[in-house]
Amino acid sequence: MDRTLVADAVKKIGEEVEVSGWVHRVRDLGGVVFIILRDRSGQMQLVTDEFSLPVESVITGRGTVKANDKAPGGAEVELSGFEILGEAAPDLPLAVNQDPSDLGLDVILDNRMISLRNPKILSIFKLQADIVKNFADFFRNRDFTQIKTSKIIGGGSEGGTNLFTMDYFGKTAYLAQSPQLYKQTMVSSGLERVFEIGHAYRAEKHETPRHINEYVSLDIEMGFIDSEKPLMEIERDFMAYLFETVRKENSAELEAWGATVPDPETCADIPIVPHEEAKKIVKSETGQRALEINPEAERVLCDWAEREHGIPMIFINEFPKRKRPFYTYPLGQKTMSFDLLFRGLEITTGGRRINEYKMLMDALPKFGMKPGELGAYEDIFKYGCPPHGGFAIGLERITQKILGLQNIKEATLFPRDRKRVSP
Amino acid sequence: MDRTLVADAVKKIGEEVEVSGWVHRVRDLGGVVFIILRDRSGQMQLVTDEFSLPVESVITGRGTVKANDKAPGGAEVELSGFEILGEAAPDLPLAVNQDPSDLGLDVILDNRMISLRNPKILSIFKLQADIVKNFADFFRNRDFTQIKTSKIIGGGSEGGTNLFTMDYFGKTAYLAQSPQLYKQTMVSSGLERVFEIGHAYRAEKHETPRHINEYVSLDIEMGFIDSEKPLMEIERDFMAYLFETVRKENSAELEAWGATVPDPETCADIPIVPHEEAKKIVKSETGQRALEINPEAERVLCDWAEREHGIPMIFINEFPKRKRPFYTYPLGQKTMSFDLLFRGLEITTGGRRINEYKMLMDALPKFGMKPGELGAYEDIFKYGCPPHGGFAIGLERITQKILGLQNIKEATLFPRDRKRVSP
Repeated sequence: MDRTLVADAVKKIGEEVEVSGWVHRVRDLGGVVFIILRDRSGQMQLVTDEFSLPVESVITGRGTVKANDKAPGGAEVELSGFEILGEAAPDLPLAVNQDPSDLGLDVILDNRMISLRNPKILSIFKLQADIVKNFADFFRNRDFTQIKTSKIIGGGSEGGTNLFTMDYFGKTAYLAQSPQLYKQTMVSSGLERVFEIGHAYRAEKHETPRHINEYVSLDIEMGFIDSEKPLMEIERDFMAYLFETVRKENSAELEAWGATVPDPETCADIPIVPHEEAKKIVKSETGQRALEINPEAERVLCDWAEREHGIPMIFINEFPKRKRPFYTYPLGQKTMSFDLLFRGLEITTGGRRINEYKMLMDALPKFGMKPGELGAYEDIFKYGCPPHGGFAIGLERITQKILGLQNIKEATLFPRDRKRVSP
Repeated sequence: MDRTLVADAVKKIGEEVEVSGWVHRVRDLGGVVFIILRDRSGQMQLVTDEFSLPVESVITGRGTVKANDKAPGGAEVELSGFEILGEAAPDLPLAVNQDPSDLGLDVILDNRMISLRNPKILSIFKLQADIVKNFADFFRNRDFTQIKTSKIIGGGSEGGTNLFTMDYFGKTAYLAQSPQLYKQTMVSSGLERVFEIGHAYRAEKHETPRHINEYVSLDIEMGFIDSEKPLMEIERDFMAYLFETVRKENSAELEAWGATVPDPETCADIPIVPHEEAKKIVKSETGQRALEINPEAERVLCDWAEREHGIPMIFINEFPKRKRPFYTYPLGQKTMSFDLLFRGLEITTGGRRINEYKMLMDALPKFGMKPGELGAYEDIFKYGCPPHGGFAIGLERITQKILGLQNIKEATLFPRDRKRVSP
């Protein structure tokens, strides 16, 4: 007999079915045992008269589907027999079938192989898979080409700090902290519009709920724009598309976490506030002078945006030169750059890049670099490069903020921090 | 005026347009200059009376579209004026506007920032982007969930050889040579069916046309299968889908390389030949005893399959135990494993994995390992794991073989080999 997923089996009242999955819960009333079976489609009740396997054992059960209003999905399988596919040991390190809210983050991550089985925890990664899909769909539909670029690099693309070092056949190499150089290469190659979904590495010693040392960066770069404005527009449109799709397709995940996403239509109202102005807003909201936009200021600004514009998001643009990398296109003493904050967290950094060879060469000394030092990177500009820019969205950060997770590590399958390099 | 892509501009006879792109070619007849402009949509002729910019300069031109049978696309723009967006230096290191066949691979890779502008070279990566999309679409449509797993690991998943080492905050960590452990975790988490598109790292000192040290692995893993057969079936269906889509959507790239893909319908005829039997075929084809399926034998077997079954592909299954990793499910002294060869090259390795805790613990000593040594990996099986298996397709290899490229490095944007760690 072929396997039926439980989401389909509950509709087959009166039919013989074969269902397979994990024993999620067992309630033994003596003489009658109710088993909740969990598969990728959901959960379903099985009924039998004797059952002694530990929870999380994997079984295949056969029997007739009977209507039962009290069972999940309104039906249950009266087992005629079952087969053990994988028996679980009885000393499960944490409960898979309970709300994980009471478990500490360390317990969840120390037992990652098992905690991921918890349906509420697993739902985070179903949503995350859909965010990846939505990102790729949105930009493909706008003529962007997906690229896959090397994460092992001979030197740093943003000044060389905070890079992980590795041994590359006896030489020192680095893990890329962003695909910046490669995105720009591919714009100037003639693709014009590219996106990449790939890992980025930062050897920062942070220990905060918003930092991990390896993350997935949703990167785009596009040519033939002359300021950061078209970048903010396309990101605003993407956020609206994402929220719309998540509302339609991820209601189960939102519900599991008691989460909501902003009304897609309000994305048109995301305010764009120059950096200098943003600091004034923080001062007027808190009464304290803001020297920089720190995490507390990011929360204040999103609260302000929600109150004044009806959406907890804000673009901050025109950052001063000293706050941005050497390749950022200047605008007097400011730059054509921006961040996007969402629910109190910076989820994007972006901007127009310098595309003129001479301007780039002139800018290098101000950042302690010499012409020639950037090697092949300089060729991009030396041989004709259109005006261009781009941005990156942190996948784990946007997942965290959509679901309202306390810590970014919850939004990472196998998070890497200063102390954690396994599993 | 808004920019018009050249593929659209050629249709706007009589209209004023603004086009932007790279100066691909200049033909100065004295008093009349023909410029071929290249943008992401194609190439178009511009006509003016004077023009002195080097090729690869980026310009925006304005003018009226006139019909001209001799121009590419049947029309040209009579320039009324143009603007320089990015001037190119005149010492271009290689010709962008000529067939790259005469350039050596080292020249192409040493000047990667510029060689990628060559339309024929760039077409490789347009096709590759579509392969990635097709892979994701195909498996998503079959209920697979995309995962993103860590590439920094505390230990090796396949025995610990050929791993790149890195410094992780003062400790030694490794770059993952495959997402094996994580794919299995996610099957047993309840997702059941997962795929990952991510980098894999092999610190092998190979210097061959088929090896690179960093590659993109198209990985799948699925639960509730009891042999390698369903894996070969789903891969066969994927190959048919891929060939069908490439025929439909990538004719320009195939044409640029004079390439064809097999008839999708013939994928149903891909022979499945046990390893022992495959060696006999090699012997009868070559007259020489085959001790293993080496690159020469892979070519012989694909030629045999093309002659006997009408498709240059062959599944080899039932590899002996000593040829496969410790986690491979046994079948007597053989294993439930397979490779897929395509046009003389192994593009896939896969198989059923051991899902029973006791069987895995008993297998370890035969591979020089001890129970407990695999740490959290063992928990997957200790706490209930369904029968499962999976495979991986090398993205660069399948790109190489579809287009008939001589060297896998041609199918890699920024290839990494023993000597090459930049750009």
